[in-house]
Amino acid sequence: MLVERFPQNPLITPADVPPSRPDYEVVGAFNAGATIYNGQVILLLRVAERPVDKPADEQVAPILNPETGQIEYFRKKDADPDVEIPDSRSFYYKGSMYLTSISHLRIARSDDGVNFTVDPAPAVFPETDYETFGLEDPRITKIGEIYYIVYKVVSENGICTGLLKTLDFVEFERMGIIFCPENIDVVLFPEKIGGKFFALTRPVPMHLGPRGIWLASSDDAVQWGNHKPLILPREGLFDGGKTGGSCVPIRTEKGWLEIYHGSDETDKYSLAGALLDLNDPSKVIARSKRPLMSPEAEYEVKGFYGNVVFACGAITRDDGTVTIYYGASDEFTAAANTTIDKIISTME
Amino acid sequence: MLVERFPQNPLITPADVPPSRPDYEVVGAFNAGATIYNGQVILLLRVAERPVDKPADEQVAPILNPETGQIEYFRKKDADPDVEIPDSRSFYYKGSMYLTSISHLRIARSDDGVNFTVDPAPAVFPETDYETFGLEDPRITKIGEIYYIVYKVVSENGICTGLLKTLDFVEFERMGIIFCPENIDVVLFPEKIGGKFFALTRPVPMHLGPRGIWLASSDDAVQWGNHKPLILPREGLFDGGKTGGSCVPIRTEKGWLEIYHGSDETDKYSLAGALLDLNDPSKVIARSKRPLMSPEAEYEVKGFYGNVVFACGAITRDDGTVTIYYGASDEFTAAANTTIDKIISTME
Repeated sequence: MLVERFPQNPLITPADVPPSRPDYEVVGAFNAGATIYNGQVILLLRVAERPVDKPADEQVAPILNPETGQIEYFRKKDADPDVEIPDSRSFYYKGSMYLTSISHLRIARSDDGVNFTVDPAPAVFPETDYETFGLEDPRITKIGEIYYIVYKVVSENGICTGLLKTLDFVEFERMGIIFCPENIDVVLFPEKIGGKFFALTRPVPMHLGPRGIWLASSDDAVQWGNHKPLILPREGLFDGGKTGGSCVPIRTEKGWLEIYHGSDETDKYSLAGALLDLNDPSKVIARSKRPLMSPEAEYEVKGFYGNVVFACGAITRDDGTVTIYYGASDEFTAAANTTIDKIISTME
Repeated sequence: MLVERFPQNPLITPADVPPSRPDYEVVGAFNAGATIYNGQVILLLRVAERPVDKPADEQVAPILNPETGQIEYFRKKDADPDVEIPDSRSFYYKGSMYLTSISHLRIARSDDGVNFTVDPAPAVFPETDYETFGLEDPRITKIGEIYYIVYKVVSENGICTGLLKTLDFVEFERMGIIFCPENIDVVLFPEKIGGKFFALTRPVPMHLGPRGIWLASSDDAVQWGNHKPLILPREGLFDGGKTGGSCVPIRTEKGWLEIYHGSDETDKYSLAGALLDLNDPSKVIARSKRPLMSPEAEYEVKGFYGNVVFACGAITRDDGTVTIYYGASDEFTAAANTTIDKIISTME
């Protein structure tokens, strides 16, 4: 067995999360960043919400008005000829994309890594003009005393990546947009290499080029350069559609071990591993020849958007065991145990 | 008259440019960056070439093999059902884009700004794995003694922006990719503002957001952050389709004057102006309400890809006159005179 799913899965469901306001319902609690803080496992959940009173024949996009701080609604009838509805997550009106929910970041805390208590209120809520459609898919990297949180920010101007810093998971400092549209699934390495910060990024080019993982470096984690393609999709394999960084790279004797996600041509998402040179992470040493984990359990196959396992965080122990916290079906948070050796065994 | 086209237009045509090898033909000499060096006007032309022997019923993409330094050919019959041909510039095979020509950068020199002598050999030729489809659309910004050249780099991994530095237009130092795919039409400001380099960028998002001008800042011109939307398309106007930076911003009493390009819903490209706050270029003071210049002359309306005026460079004199050097129909280099006051008059 490459991975052992927790018998308690899913660990967190939308029903476990109080909405941010009484007239909202939570439709997803998933794609959480993970770290250790004050001896506890902290998950920073993406919580997707929408108004309870959504009419059955209507698409509703909740959108922040950054000037008033209020959420307003863009409503269109399903039958409107200018409306297209590809799936549950979004709709298009006259070619422009809208999201059917708005996400914020919420903390869940656990002493044992299994039983989580979800905070009653959001930790980071949409606030700026680049977050009007929501905050999504955070990854937490501790470097020194600072927790760096990279997160997907969505607005009418694009889908890109912002940076937050926190020391205590109470106060969060916004550092602006660090990768401009369209760029998602950014993960910072857990230490500087040769004096530089490094990040995995996932450009989404319109005209030319794959949707795959690139590498960038930085002196300050805010300004980035030296972009290079790194872990690209491989035609015909489980990651032949898209690749993107998932978990913070793990330092091992054999190299940086990145747990990444890859989708195939049917948009089925799997998790897999890649090993990068410790001193020069632009060198790929090895990649999984088969997936580490693909959707199998019912909560991974069925849900808000099924057939997805998508990790944003993992906790690694000194004995080499790795607990991957992952989003299932864009709805639930689940976990599975594996080991560094098992992940590397998929590369043989 | 807002602009006065040079009676000598087009100043440079493909016939004026010797190909880089005898079995090639030059199909475009256009979209040149412009600066003053050693008292001469220097144009850094984008020179597009293709093999002379291209069969009439075939699409041919010249592609650099970065390991051998040789150009190889990706050939597909027009009749192949997997081939799509949107226009003269590119074709698609199984959904992937290929270019019908490969571009390098070539210097043209002039004492009077009108009569140019084209260098016999390329200045910067495709060389790296990110330039395999060519180098395009350079902008030259002199800061201190250094000429910074930002240029579009194209490869199978995407269309993005690289940086070159030169002191003498003989030796060019590659500084890598500064904005990852898909990002084009990058222009550096001609001086630091508050100790930072600033750039206009043009993200090309796949799913959400307009194709418009953003702003970024940097400590070293290599690593960039603080991305913000700036000069976005305006629905129903001449720039309702796309906007992108064209010329290096000009310092004026009223603000930074940016000559940018905008296309409308029919993909007709015009030039226009925007004024940005001198101390905080994220503040837009005014924008053209009508185009400064739209395709009118025969060489602007007909050519390799017609209906395009697209500037990458301008020379400004102390008396406020501005010579815009621009690409016409993705084939020719032309020029037109205007003044700072005339450009600003389009904003009223």
